[in-house]
Amino acid sequence: MNVYLQRAENIVSRIHELAAVSETSPGITRRYGTAAALEAGSKVMGWMRAAGLQTRVDAIGNIRGLLSSPVAGAGTLVIASHIDTVVNAGRWDGPLGVLMGLDLLENVVCSGRKLPFHVELIAFCDEEGVRFHTTYLGSKVVAGSFEKEVLDRKDEEGVSLGEAMHKIGGDPADLERDAIPPDQWLGYFEIHIEQGPVLYESKIPVGPVKAIAGQVRAEVIFKGMAGHAGTVPMDMRNDALCGAAEFVLALEGLARASEGGLVATVGKLQITNAASNVIPGEVVCSVDIRSADEEVLSRGLTRCRGLVAEIGARRGLTVLLNVVQTSPPVICDARMNELLGRAIGAAGYEVLELVSGAGHDAVPISAVAPVCMMFVRCHKGISHHPLEHVEMEDLRAAIAVADDLLHQLSEIWKYPL
Amino acid sequence: MNVYLQRAENIVSRIHELAAVSETSPGITRRYGTAAALEAGSKVMGWMRAAGLQTRVDAIGNIRGLLSSPVAGAGTLVIASHIDTVVNAGRWDGPLGVLMGLDLLENVVCSGRKLPFHVELIAFCDEEGVRFHTTYLGSKVVAGSFEKEVLDRKDEEGVSLGEAMHKIGGDPADLERDAIPPDQWLGYFEIHIEQGPVLYESKIPVGPVKAIAGQVRAEVIFKGMAGHAGTVPMDMRNDALCGAAEFVLALEGLARASEGGLVATVGKLQITNAASNVIPGEVVCSVDIRSADEEVLSRGLTRCRGLVAEIGARRGLTVLLNVVQTSPPVICDARMNELLGRAIGAAGYEVLELVSGAGHDAVPISAVAPVCMMFVRCHKGISHHPLEHVEMEDLRAAIAVADDLLHQLSEIWKYPL
Repeated sequence: MNVYLQRAENIVSRIHELAAVSETSPGITRRYGTAAALEAGSKVMGWMRAAGLQTRVDAIGNIRGLLSSPVAGAGTLVIASHIDTVVNAGRWDGPLGVLMGLDLLENVVCSGRKLPFHVELIAFCDEEGVRFHTTYLGSKVVAGSFEKEVLDRKDEEGVSLGEAMHKIGGDPADLERDAIPPDQWLGYFEIHIEQGPVLYESKIPVGPVKAIAGQVRAEVIFKGMAGHAGTVPMDMRNDALCGAAEFVLALEGLARASEGGLVATVGKLQITNAASNVIPGEVVCSVDIRSADEEVLSRGLTRCRGLVAEIGARRGLTVLLNVVQTSPPVICDARMNELLGRAIGAAGYEVLELVSGAGHDAVPISAVAPVCMMFVRCHKGISHHPLEHVEMEDLRAAIAVADDLLHQLSEIWKYPL
Repeated sequence: MNVYLQRAENIVSRIHELAAVSETSPGITRRYGTAAALEAGSKVMGWMRAAGLQTRVDAIGNIRGLLSSPVAGAGTLVIASHIDTVVNAGRWDGPLGVLMGLDLLENVVCSGRKLPFHVELIAFCDEEGVRFHTTYLGSKVVAGSFEKEVLDRKDEEGVSLGEAMHKIGGDPADLERDAIPPDQWLGYFEIHIEQGPVLYESKIPVGPVKAIAGQVRAEVIFKGMAGHAGTVPMDMRNDALCGAAEFVLALEGLARASEGGLVATVGKLQITNAASNVIPGEVVCSVDIRSADEEVLSRGLTRCRGLVAEIGARRGLTVLLNVVQTSPPVICDARMNELLGRAIGAAGYEVLELVSGAGHDAVPISAVAPVCMMFVRCHKGISHHPLEHVEMEDLRAAIAVADDLLHQLSEIWKYPL
């Protein structure tokens, strides 16, 4: 494995260099279209260019580096991840996949090997969707499924996505041109930290992703009656927060009791006109439920509706549940996963197939191409947090496995498909 | 009662005129030191002056109108309430007491009667404490218990109370001069809406206040571990919101089960760095518990600490409970209450002694003078809400009772005390 030490150290050094590019300091925050996001993109483009890739920024702001194949009529393998972040993020979520992809291609170029397919390395500009409350802005453009209505979506300062695009030099009119045509795709490969504790607990450095969980995001509103905290007797209250608290706990219980791998989270909870001496009259909270099993997910939503209605009726609260977004589970490509599993086994590790609870750019891409993802163990499963960490030896394992996968693909995809 | 119709209508018309003075529109919000608060004060001062009172604004911004007695060495009865409001307030909480006091004195002046004591009518400038998160700024100055440290307290825009005072023309150096000397006080009388449903449910227009509940305000912090909502299995979470939700419900249960008239409220709950796809890592919430029985209150706080510790230990959360403020119960003056009860009985109503769950300016005044409060029924007990309402016939009852009380006091307090 010592052969990979230099490459792993190079990746880590770039990870740290990107981590220093942030809207705020200390901490890492790079939302779409900000100066920090632009600076990060320009760093990545510089590295791509130095590696010998043919680079460009597309209309939405994705950084794209092409390694062309000499084979006439060759298809394209996309290797990608994202370089935007959540607020107060870790340094590995996203950049790891881009910089490992870059290392893979640098290695190919250095070796003088020619591949029988084009490889496009892409650093997606927006996966987290923090600024405009969107999903997968960058990869949807590449998949050709970008919804133009989203251009009118405004950020907290009232700037629309369309305006933000213009500001960074992109033209919404060019978005369609930036999609890779469906017949051009061979496949999609993304390396990402697991963002969960399964590899960590199982003591395995990398694993193939079997499926990406489907997700339902909803907003739940509890309306009671605001009142003075000192003067309304306990038995005459319609406290919206007490209703919401029951819901939070019931939802936790529902997910804990589920045998289908359902997870459920209330991540936001807002009391309207909150004051310490006012009985909460209205509470709005978010609901996020996920499962790799579409049936389990849909049953989860139904039971969630039932909980809300039951609590509302019993406590005299008006309730409302609005589904904000749903995405069905994505099953990763069996053929590519077989090759990935073979590579992991050859490197001496157990092949533990994982379900991704987090969404990834592979989700929109799966509509136009076979997708394959490899997860890398992260410390204690922590992500979206400054403590996010990947060990050097896991990086080295990941490099070995990715090299092997690319080699296998170049064996398979060199014949007419 | 028809004799009081004109006076009641006059009070209501002034209530509506004050309600139109607000920082925001629609709605009523008048926080200390704002242009709206100044305008309201200047209206009230104009009415006082027209009624023949000797008016002034004191250093903190209280509007004070003196009806002097011709008796040498006479003591002072203070009749008061406040004209600041909470955010999005009702129109009666505070102004009712000021404008009924004004009506009482107008009636004395018109009748040509001379009282054997001075009456100072005061419109306190800050009882709700919204802007600086303080309590009783106005009445503490009059009671001589204003704490100078509070002058450094800053509002959300970073303006200190001292600066806000200067801006409205007050000088902190004059604050001590504005206190009424302890040996000058005869008593304090305040009329206020009940802000609770007891009179409404009992179908009685007015009632004497036996005691003002003591109060503990605390802040509780639950610290767990933030994490990705999709990737951390349910059994590996330390969700701070789930802990807080248990606390909200346990506190509700504790107060419901209490036989000592304990009420408890979580009015604020804030998730640090909240996002719909992030497991809450930290939650800060407020606690407000009240009782007219000091023993019940102190036991309530002890049990509240126990709940927080138990939930923290069971869920693997770090917890912290900080007491922000405590105020012991205030017992109203038995002698004045006896006279008030007599007046209520004489007007033909049952005398139902109430406990005030809300704090009032009578709390700081009780340290220097006998205090007496009369509550007026409000619609469904609603307050701190635009739906706050008092019926015309209840106002008329309140006028009759207040006239009678003032008459009885002038019989008693005309001899050397």
